[in-house]
Amino acid sequence: MSFKNFNTQHLLAQITGSRFSATYRLTGNEQEARDKAADICTEQTVEFPFQLLPQGAIPDQIVGRIERFEPDGENAFLATITFADETAANESTQLLNVLFGNISIKRGIKLAAFKPSESQTPFLPGAQFGVDAIRKILNVPKRPLLFTALKPMGLSAPNLAELAKLFAEGGIDIIKDDHGLSDQVFSRFKERVTSCANAVNEASVRLNRKSIYVPNITAPFDQLLDRATFAKENGAGAVMISPGLTGLDALRYLTQSKIGLPIIVHPAFIGGMAMSPTEGIGCGVLYGTLMRLLGADATIFPNFGGRFPLSQDDCMQIVKACREPIRIPSIFPSPAGGMELKNIRNMVELYGNDMLILIGSGLFRGSGNLTDNCKRFRDEVDSCLQ
Amino acid sequence: MSFKNFNTQHLLAQITGSRFSATYRLTGNEQEARDKAADICTEQTVEFPFQLLPQGAIPDQIVGRIERFEPDGENAFLATITFADETAANESTQLLNVLFGNISIKRGIKLAAFKPSESQTPFLPGAQFGVDAIRKILNVPKRPLLFTALKPMGLSAPNLAELAKLFAEGGIDIIKDDHGLSDQVFSRFKERVTSCANAVNEASVRLNRKSIYVPNITAPFDQLLDRATFAKENGAGAVMISPGLTGLDALRYLTQSKIGLPIIVHPAFIGGMAMSPTEGIGCGVLYGTLMRLLGADATIFPNFGGRFPLSQDDCMQIVKACREPIRIPSIFPSPAGGMELKNIRNMVELYGNDMLILIGSGLFRGSGNLTDNCKRFRDEVDSCLQ
Repeated sequence: MSFKNFNTQHLLAQITGSRFSATYRLTGNEQEARDKAADICTEQTVEFPFQLLPQGAIPDQIVGRIERFEPDGENAFLATITFADETAANESTQLLNVLFGNISIKRGIKLAAFKPSESQTPFLPGAQFGVDAIRKILNVPKRPLLFTALKPMGLSAPNLAELAKLFAEGGIDIIKDDHGLSDQVFSRFKERVTSCANAVNEASVRLNRKSIYVPNITAPFDQLLDRATFAKENGAGAVMISPGLTGLDALRYLTQSKIGLPIIVHPAFIGGMAMSPTEGIGCGVLYGTLMRLLGADATIFPNFGGRFPLSQDDCMQIVKACREPIRIPSIFPSPAGGMELKNIRNMVELYGNDMLILIGSGLFRGSGNLTDNCKRFRDEVDSCLQ
Repeated sequence: MSFKNFNTQHLLAQITGSRFSATYRLTGNEQEARDKAADICTEQTVEFPFQLLPQGAIPDQIVGRIERFEPDGENAFLATITFADETAANESTQLLNVLFGNISIKRGIKLAAFKPSESQTPFLPGAQFGVDAIRKILNVPKRPLLFTALKPMGLSAPNLAELAKLFAEGGIDIIKDDHGLSDQVFSRFKERVTSCANAVNEASVRLNRKSIYVPNITAPFDQLLDRATFAKENGAGAVMISPGLTGLDALRYLTQSKIGLPIIVHPAFIGGMAMSPTEGIGCGVLYGTLMRLLGADATIFPNFGGRFPLSQDDCMQIVKACREPIRIPSIFPSPAGGMELKNIRNMVELYGNDMLILIGSGLFRGSGNLTDNCKRFRDEVDSCLQ
């Protein structure tokens, strides 16, 4: 039998009709953009010239379908394309491959939106906690949460624990490792987690005010679950990972492994995919939609006006994606990246109260008394409360 | 004790002095580029303002050091920066974080080269096979290897096995899954691997000419090792993963898990990080250096002149990085992405014989007789042999 006549009847019984959708921003004139949209439909599925496909079910069911096509400003178009759920095989790895695998390497194609089907819930579980549950844990019903980082790299575990204690005494709600602290010789993961968790938990009890410690568990493939488990068993209140370093599906895996701790995600390495106006992944999709669906409870992003180049519009898209009413809990956006006390009012006005305000080295500026600076952080948040 | 006076003496005994180096291409005038270089030294390590650091060992040992700074054409400079091995904690995840974590989100910084220290061998193992061992397995001492892909998605496992048989009969050396085949309902991973491996191995015995089947084992975090093991136990001759989807350290993990099969890497999703002239990761580093160090035996890249936008210079950098004489085996570059028979002469002239020439749907064009087209592929390679 020749290839063009391969029997593909089996597909008709296997395709449920449930589809997920992706919107791409395509740069070029209308014909170029239409060609790009058509190319995405085959490149991301069959990776085969349409006219050479065996006729019937494959072109009808497996190849993507252009559902909408409209201008988006000058020299750009938005194409919404749907794909059969079965192409993504109920795997987040393969889903990402269909959404943006090969076309990540083509010019003028940007992933601008992703909408999963309802059937994709099993591998896009969403947060196990989310905004409401984390507010309850911390007993902070309304205001933005105060968030800081233990650093610089090079401090010993006892030094970091001393800092953690000062932050907790200063009233910081969430005290995390800097994302560059992993298992360095000068501050081993286990010693650091034990010391910092003890310091924060002891201060919480002493002051009768809840703070939590959040270790960075970004780790080699075969150590990730061990670090999460160690964190859970030794007093951490949440964990942080950088999914760009571990692979995005590690976030989904951690979420479903039921470690029973909230997960905060950091954009190291992968943030670079959201830097171009014409290529890569839109900020709202990368920091917001994808992280939220894969299970993040909070997503750290480089806020505009700090030391990273995102625009206000980029940031608003992230915040919106954290809160869009869908089947899974809302999560905390966490503006960061060179924020100082003077940025707080603007953040609260733009983003409202449901966020983690991450101020790291900004707390070491000014008077130099860390506890006082933490209290100023809290006072500033209270004075801006919406 | 105040923060600025934290005792960091412990570091002096912990820092060995062994350092790895990264070269960044920095866009801007000289002052801007010098500022960027200085910023990388702190952003990627302490993530803390230099002047606020506790004095002594942290600024001396943990902060990166600019070792070279020189112009690179107009409005760009190359800065070579070294970092203490201890910052990377003997983990590829943390190494990538130091090399390009936060600065992936800054403008005008491109990772242009990476040179590990000798002490980083334990987590940058290099190929377990490489060019020479794979040539022995296939009994092809000299010519480029013939490489193709089973597709389109939507075919059943028996259909794919039929194709695999035709390819093997046509003399293709390496027959892989298309990278979009994972565990879809129409062609389940286990059935596909068994069927295709049997088809290829049976043809190899019958024709007394070795071909191997290479399943795509890109999979969710908790299924990767199972798929690799299943592949090994059921007749696969190598495996393929897309490290952009699984996380790059999954490649290192597979390499060190001693599954005993060569590993071919595919650039889906992560290839987009090597698209910008001024940001992201250079093609040679991403496709070549990093994949080779983490254990790839062959690296598929989108060749110039096909349907992807890499330049000839980009591709030459990849090929060079696959072969640079370092402590680990040379690996096969695998030009791909819309290649046809007519491209072979140019590839052989540019890249020499040590490569896998990947022609996928190109084999379905022309006369339509797949076995004949495979033979033309082989004839063309032989006629171009250097």
